[in-house]
Amino acid sequence: MIDLPFTFTLPMPQAIPSRVDNHIERRLSALRGQFSDQEAYNKKLSNEDLLIYEVYEIKRPEVAGELLMGISIVHPGKVGREFFMTKGHFHSVLDTSEIYYCLRGEGYMVMETPEGDTSVEALTPGKILYVPPRWAHRSICTSRLEDLVTFFAYPANAGHDYGTIERKGFRKLVLEGVNGPEIVDNPRYQ
Amino acid sequence: MIDLPFTFTLPMPQAIPSRVDNHIERRLSALRGQFSDQEAYNKKLSNEDLLIYEVYEIKRPEVAGELLMGISIVHPGKVGREFFMTKGHFHSVLDTSEIYYCLRGEGYMVMETPEGDTSVEALTPGKILYVPPRWAHRSICTSRLEDLVTFFAYPANAGHDYGTIERKGFRKLVLEGVNGPEIVDNPRYQ
Repeated sequence: MIDLPFTFTLPMPQAIPSRVDNHIERRLSALRGQFSDQEAYNKKLSNEDLLIYEVYEIKRPEVAGELLMGISIVHPGKVGREFFMTKGHFHSVLDTSEIYYCLRGEGYMVMETPEGDTSVEALTPGKILYVPPRWAHRSICTSRLEDLVTFFAYPANAGHDYGTIERKGFRKLVLEGVNGPEIVDNPRYQ
Repeated sequence: MIDLPFTFTLPMPQAIPSRVDNHIERRLSALRGQFSDQEAYNKKLSNEDLLIYEVYEIKRPEVAGELLMGISIVHPGKVGREFFMTKGHFHSVLDTSEIYYCLRGEGYMVMETPEGDTSVEALTPGKILYVPPRWAHRSICTSRLEDLVTFFAYPANAGHDYGTIERKGFRKLVLEGVNGPEIVDNPRYQ
């Protein structure tokens, strides 16, 4: 069977790809231990296991030279003062990068290296972000009403290491402050 | 020095990246031997060495795991009945793919494998094209007035093999027909 080129579109405003091989839904329960305010988390979860973010993936062979791509949608909301966010991860093959193209909404990408370097970049529509190799990354939706929607692409052999972030957390948090989002040190970082 | 994440934008309608490391200009003289109508080519070139296409590149280390990206702009025009196009190339590391995101204009991506498989995909704004590993690719602007503008990303170790296409050409051409662009066999394919 010939491995043919293919096209797809991202019909706005939803930006759900016209071709989808896998749809991931991550609910509040999947982010246990990640939000700073554990009391607010437990209270919110006891009320409803809310949908926090979704990923639409286009599958390719997971080998070097191929690229994986898809759409990430982080819904608006907060746990205490902390905005809804993705689990965040390192790539299992640490020396692999990722490109994000922000299509809709407002938010941040929180990033860090194993050596403790940190970076937080604002995402607004039309902005392209390059996450170099070695940087763990988590997207955060800071809009009150609108989803944060990004198109992403990364080397197909990268893999995902979620465990490191689950154990340690990120060094930086994004919280709602009086004058908008605030980037603060994570007091629970291990 | 820390290898920091970075962002850039593609201000429309030009879509020239707000961060650029290299700007390539390809003129008619750089496409010698590629257009089907050699008489029309020579006549056009004797008149003016027209700018056919431009590439704005963002540099990264050219190693596996990194991604190279940029903007390709093919200007409107024809040589005889054949639309302005890029030189087209295989990747030197044949088993590497490429993603194109069409931002503006109308055109086609003409593709083929070393084994002789061919594919021609239409490009319109909002369409994303996946060029699998092994497929040579050439973009063609079929709009009469507007540039064909695409954002591209590919594995940074891919490299470019222009020589094979310079010698053999592509198996398919896109010519202006009575009712719009026509995809035809290349009579000069070697």
